[in-house]
Amino acid sequence: MAMNAPRGTQDILPGTVEKWQYIEETLRDLSHRFHYKEIRTPIFEHTELFQRGVGDSTDIVQKEMYTFEDRGGRSITLRPEGTASVVRSFVQNKLYGLANQPTKLFYFGPMFRYERPQQGRYRQFIQFGMEALGSEDPAVDAEVLSFAMKAYEELGLKSLKLVLNSLGDQVSREAHRQALVDHFSPHKEELCGDCQLRLEQNPLRVLDCKKDKDHPAMETAPSILEYLNEFSETYFDQVKRYLDAMGIDYEVDPNLVRGLDYYNHTAFEIMSEAEGFGAITTLSGGGRYNGLVEDIGGPDTPGIGFALSIERLLMALEAEGVELPAEDALDCYVIAMGEKAELEAVKLVDQLRSNGLQVDKDYLQKKMKAQFKAADRLKAKKVVILGDREIEEGVGNVKDMTSGEQKEVKLEEIVNELKVEKEE
Amino acid sequence: MAMNAPRGTQDILPGTVEKWQYIEETLRDLSHRFHYKEIRTPIFEHTELFQRGVGDSTDIVQKEMYTFEDRGGRSITLRPEGTASVVRSFVQNKLYGLANQPTKLFYFGPMFRYERPQQGRYRQFIQFGMEALGSEDPAVDAEVLSFAMKAYEELGLKSLKLVLNSLGDQVSREAHRQALVDHFSPHKEELCGDCQLRLEQNPLRVLDCKKDKDHPAMETAPSILEYLNEFSETYFDQVKRYLDAMGIDYEVDPNLVRGLDYYNHTAFEIMSEAEGFGAITTLSGGGRYNGLVEDIGGPDTPGIGFALSIERLLMALEAEGVELPAEDALDCYVIAMGEKAELEAVKLVDQLRSNGLQVDKDYLQKKMKAQFKAADRLKAKKVVILGDREIEEGVGNVKDMTSGEQKEVKLEEIVNELKVEKEE
Repeated sequence: MAMNAPRGTQDILPGTVEKWQYIEETLRDLSHRFHYKEIRTPIFEHTELFQRGVGDSTDIVQKEMYTFEDRGGRSITLRPEGTASVVRSFVQNKLYGLANQPTKLFYFGPMFRYERPQQGRYRQFIQFGMEALGSEDPAVDAEVLSFAMKAYEELGLKSLKLVLNSLGDQVSREAHRQALVDHFSPHKEELCGDCQLRLEQNPLRVLDCKKDKDHPAMETAPSILEYLNEFSETYFDQVKRYLDAMGIDYEVDPNLVRGLDYYNHTAFEIMSEAEGFGAITTLSGGGRYNGLVEDIGGPDTPGIGFALSIERLLMALEAEGVELPAEDALDCYVIAMGEKAELEAVKLVDQLRSNGLQVDKDYLQKKMKAQFKAADRLKAKKVVILGDREIEEGVGNVKDMTSGEQKEVKLEEIVNELKVEKEE
Repeated sequence: MAMNAPRGTQDILPGTVEKWQYIEETLRDLSHRFHYKEIRTPIFEHTELFQRGVGDSTDIVQKEMYTFEDRGGRSITLRPEGTASVVRSFVQNKLYGLANQPTKLFYFGPMFRYERPQQGRYRQFIQFGMEALGSEDPAVDAEVLSFAMKAYEELGLKSLKLVLNSLGDQVSREAHRQALVDHFSPHKEELCGDCQLRLEQNPLRVLDCKKDKDHPAMETAPSILEYLNEFSETYFDQVKRYLDAMGIDYEVDPNLVRGLDYYNHTAFEIMSEAEGFGAITTLSGGGRYNGLVEDIGGPDTPGIGFALSIERLLMALEAEGVELPAEDALDCYVIAMGEKAELEAVKLVDQLRSNGLQVDKDYLQKKMKAQFKAADRLKAKKVVILGDREIEEGVGNVKDMTSGEQKEVKLEEIVNELKVEKEE
């Protein structure tokens, strides 16, 4: 019986993996320029971290986590997102005590949610994310927003929309929360079961409900923007001013609510406007979470972050017809005929690789003609041909596959010859 | 209450992560030169894959796997090693049908084993590994061995030992197996419980037992090398000839048995001989596994691979005092004083980053002097100083932190000026 990868997971194979490598390199380079440094946290954490850090009332925690007991009887969970782990690490390793603040971090890696697999949605998916911890300067919000847009733009996407909202500070949120309860309570019986619970636990998330989105009370629901206090309003204005200064377009949507409980002030999503992209147009999102570090046991520390899914990014690239550059021409292919030549070929291939060239040879005892075919298929720039007669004379034939020119080169000079030609 | 990472896992933080990045880049570059391409398989697989692909009688499968049921009632396991997953993917995706054979793959990522954590041994550890599937040419074995040694050498390690053995083909292994049973059976009662079982299931693994390693019967145990048939002996000789041709030193140890069930012919380990490296000196290992692809449901396909742990590699680098290069000087730090200057600074920082420079600024409303201190700490090569007065005059001050020279530059020319100077 053949075995398959678990449902909702995928293998990324040569031919496709080059796109992932290119995206990863681009995001790493951009992170470097923005002065964000990489952090690598474990694949799993104590379950309690996500209950507290993502929020008990979220779909993620209630329905989608890969939670299990390890052999020591501890409840552990495969991380469903990156922020809680980064904040846990920030607290545990006391990064708030370092000289350079805010602490600017990025991460790259697999996340896990038990959802129904569909196009562009996997149970194991890869996220890139960044977090800036330790500053409440609206310029940091603007920096994160600029990063998020550049990430897509530098990869070649054009049809993008940045949607922005402010969820205000604690005081503003409380006032808005009460207004939402007052607004929806008369319609409680008409809402779905989940929303009836949300109305008690976290009424803001009613606005995010897929089932009730056409209920008439949705359209007339009080907007958070009407309940922002002066501090929150000034903060939001400042973020927008910075975006304007950087020439970043955005749209304010007072109904933008993120799926996680912990956001305040700035919340945003980036959408693809490419035709035929599909029903779910959100590419990524993020926001400010000033209470989260304290919730996870650290000192009161403001924070903001965002995360993007590579799978959805790839879908957007495809929808816009963007081809990522991929280099796949071999520097040299070595062909050997005869036992002595074979020994010399193994040695030559090894030396060429030590000298920086990408080189391969045949490992299936193919005939000369089939080896040339392989060299062609691999787009080899040069082919070296070694036969037993040539070895006895101490030479090999070097063929330039572009010009078709062929010349005899002394065995001990082949490495240097090819190395110099590569560098030219 | 503060939360910690689960026992046996670690966070890799800025300051340390640069070493990991450097190692990863080096191994990727080496893989490129050897013409191995990356494959990314899921973090978890169906449990059955490892039972079959790693071997039911191994410690890994019996004691160390993170196995659990997902929400759909399937038994899944966090991968304890990489080979079974790569072979599963090779079979599922029919990579054996592609034109270029053998299929040469590498992988990089976390593996999971529930072991007692100790120095350099984690429950989540990072492996780099490679697999060549589809050729039984001893030159491929030599290629993999050369790769493994170069991986360490190019990172700067010097005190290395390559230990080599042949486990022979099926026929040779059977003959040796019988000889082992005959040899150990009279001493069965004196062996540990595990070995009594092993004697029935897989007697070769008795030689690998840590508890019984001082039993007198160990020393006189029949060597596999005495039982190699002609094909296996010729194969092993050929591998050694290639290693000699490449100038790779090795030591043959007939007692070298790898912890996995599936090896045949070539088996090897690389040891650190650095002083003070610790009791376990094995850095990595690998070998040939010609039956594995068929065991996992694919066509009869030979294969060979090896894997190394990054954690143990880091220990060896430390034991030999090797410093990996790490670049950490900021291209530019922008200092702003005043509200208008702040807005201009946000814009300038963003433009500089778009133009390839690594740039940062203050986000904590620090005084000028403290901002200069931050620039020093971040080893900024240039500092741009913007004040409200300068903004009104349309200029900024650019200071070269090496020479101490300072000059006034028009605002719209700063980006170009710094970009040109970086490129020089």
